[in-house]
Amino acid sequence: MCKEKEKNDGTACKKEAVKKRTAEYPGNKTAADYADEKPEAVRRLIRSGQITGETSGMCNGYAQANLVVLPRDKAFDFLLFAVRNPRACPLLEVTEAGERKLKKIAPGADIATDIPRYRIYENGVLTGEYTEVSDFWRPDLVSFLIGCSFSFEGELLQADIPVRQIEEHCNVPMYRTNIPCESAGIFHGSMVVSMRPIPYALVPRAVLATGAMPKVHGAPIHIGAPEAIGISDLDKPDFGDRVTVKEGEVPVFWPCGVTPQAVVMASRPDFCITHSPGHMLLTDVKNVTLKY
Amino acid sequence: MCKEKEKNDGTACKKEAVKKRTAEYPGNKTAADYADEKPEAVRRLIRSGQITGETSGMCNGYAQANLVVLPRDKAFDFLLFAVRNPRACPLLEVTEAGERKLKKIAPGADIATDIPRYRIYENGVLTGEYTEVSDFWRPDLVSFLIGCSFSFEGELLQADIPVRQIEEHCNVPMYRTNIPCESAGIFHGSMVVSMRPIPYALVPRAVLATGAMPKVHGAPIHIGAPEAIGISDLDKPDFGDRVTVKEGEVPVFWPCGVTPQAVVMASRPDFCITHSPGHMLLTDVKNVTLKY
Repeated sequence: MCKEKEKNDGTACKKEAVKKRTAEYPGNKTAADYADEKPEAVRRLIRSGQITGETSGMCNGYAQANLVVLPRDKAFDFLLFAVRNPRACPLLEVTEAGERKLKKIAPGADIATDIPRYRIYENGVLTGEYTEVSDFWRPDLVSFLIGCSFSFEGELLQADIPVRQIEEHCNVPMYRTNIPCESAGIFHGSMVVSMRPIPYALVPRAVLATGAMPKVHGAPIHIGAPEAIGISDLDKPDFGDRVTVKEGEVPVFWPCGVTPQAVVMASRPDFCITHSPGHMLLTDVKNVTLKY
Repeated sequence: MCKEKEKNDGTACKKEAVKKRTAEYPGNKTAADYADEKPEAVRRLIRSGQITGETSGMCNGYAQANLVVLPRDKAFDFLLFAVRNPRACPLLEVTEAGERKLKKIAPGADIATDIPRYRIYENGVLTGEYTEVSDFWRPDLVSFLIGCSFSFEGELLQADIPVRQIEEHCNVPMYRTNIPCESAGIFHGSMVVSMRPIPYALVPRAVLATGAMPKVHGAPIHIGAPEAIGISDLDKPDFGDRVTVKEGEVPVFWPCGVTPQAVVMASRPDFCITHSPGHMLLTDVKNVTLKY
């Protein structure tokens, strides 16, 4: 299903990703070899530069987080944007200006070194990708850690609901929509959604299972009829990969953690650090605790 | 149960409140006479100065909100404080700096005129109480509207769970605790809780009923053993009124919307407007929608 080219969000396709992966973990390991490791141990390997690859499949049962870092003078508006759009931007932790160490979701983790790959944007333009960003750190930077749908996918699988992109070993398809976000200061834009095809009979269960986890996007935002939310072709996702929608399945759409990144880029702050897609922060938060 | 003196949070005792109330509503009406009115209609009466009394009992089924207004230079820290302490400070709406009109929870409502009674604090000191604050409005003021436990009390009553302070016609007892809030910038302090005595057999139901409404404080923060959270005498609440705890009942404690006010006062920002206790914003949000 994965196409043979670099996607517009920069995530590599399946074939390329597999090839890269062997060089991004120690020895001949892959991300899946870290499924049973504790997050703190894997963060140490990331911090020392031994792991620079994607984190999907690592540290089963623990939440992973999206990162957005902005200067203090843009931080109020972005925090307000997140508060006004909690479905797309569920905040797991926000730091004080200049603070590199996390306190809550991964105590002691260093924001500038403990993520395998970062991106830097200047005035909305991607200016570089790095495996650590210590040299770019400034005392006015505020970090936002945002929940990720990896957390609820574990819940879906446990409830015997298929997750197609896991079956097809590629990225979840993501689409820009016409669902407006509430603006805040300079930050504005539409919601990005992720899509998982669900058998009709399992849709209510999928709603209830994910609805119980509002800190990681919660219930679907839309069920069926892609055109009603401005998606013209399910086979052409704006980010990630196309997946198969089988007979008897309906496309179900969830608010996506790519929304804040897309909004930040469209709003062109002078300086912004994010994680690189697929290269998330491994937190010490157990997914199951995100229900409460 | 209510004492015959002004409380340290400024709420009048039952007897005095009843006396005042007749002068604070048109004709011989009381708050209860507005139980079936639409919030928008009652806000109009408040805006025109015809109602200046407490709002408890008005507009059944609709949420009421706490107000905190701070200058823009303190707003990021306070927003961060609320995000870090969502149990005590559930945000229903936050305005842009200078914006007096609400957009979401009470579209068109004027923050400076549509609440029956306001307080102004300078450097943490109460400097005045007003029925409108237009003259004090500044272009740098950011308004925070915070959920209120009135919303979940309706849910408790519908689930046949007694709400003692309603039975005893007084204010809910509130206590300072030793439960630390997470600090943010200048804002720091401990959680204030409200207490309702619940029959042992109904405690699980009370947890589930309120836990389903996280936007208005959610599940209890503590059940039984007041001393475990630093409360030495249940009969001496720090705010509000003492209520009877009957044989076979356990004191159940919920995070309280007085927390942000107590924290703001302890943190002494140069300027702050709040609602006056008991004099809330009547919103257009139906309580039942706060579950989703």
